[in-house]
Amino acid sequence: MAQPDDVVNLQDKLAQVTEQWTPGTVAEANDWQFKVVKIAGRFVWHSHEVDEVFLVLNGDVVIELEDRPSVHLQEGELFVVPRGVRHCPDAPAECQLLLIEPAGVRNTGTHGGSRTVDQRLL
Amino acid sequence: MAQPDDVVNLQDKLAQVTEQWTPGTVAEANDWQFKVVKIAGRFVWHSHEVDEVFLVLNGDVVIELEDRPSVHLQEGELFVVPRGVRHCPDAPAECQLLLIEPAGVRNTGTHGGSRTVDQRLL
Repeated sequence: MAQPDDVVNLQDKLAQVTEQWTPGTVAEANDWQFKVVKIAGRFVWHSHEVDEVFLVLNGDVVIELEDRPSVHLQEGELFVVPRGVRHCPDAPAECQLLLIEPAGVRNTGTHGGSRTVDQRLL
Repeated sequence: MAQPDDVVNLQDKLAQVTEQWTPGTVAEANDWQFKVVKIAGRFVWHSHEVDEVFLVLNGDVVIELEDRPSVHLQEGELFVVPRGVRHCPDAPAECQLLLIEPAGVRNTGTHGGSRTVDQRLL
């Protein structure tokens, strides 16, 4: 992971990502983490106890949301999934994201299950 | 500002920015704010009591840092200015940034002065 004083080039970090659905933390600030992730296809429904921010770096993704309309995010678009709202990302092709969330958030939230991955630093 | 469930297109928000050095908050999550800003030229030396995150959306900027080497940030690069570290952004031409910082942070930090602007929502 970036050390203090390091410039983080997001594309360089993404080039180090070999597995989809495996966020890698590239920076920390205050009590937040910045994670790059590559996704494709559909994830699992889950929610977090905190707000989660998606910023699309490349590609596009639909985020299905419980009890409200889905949103379609394209490159350069940011979306806040509110805390407690169940959601399920679904990307038609590989999509590259920057996730911004409090430190320690699990990728599958309170759902857990087989898609859960350990925190990793890039 | 974006309401919950709104998709935030960063370029659309930047198109609404008419004044340089005037951050506009486009989203809030947890206790953080996401602000777009256009800058050009040199700012003032200042620091914040919290970490401040810069993500370059377009252009490039040098961030001079007290007691450590300056960093040069280009599009797609992220940098954390640690809390308490005096810094001074200097952009050779107009540069568009996404700033991510705790809610309520003042643009000139603890320095204050004539370059201070009010919080505004976009």
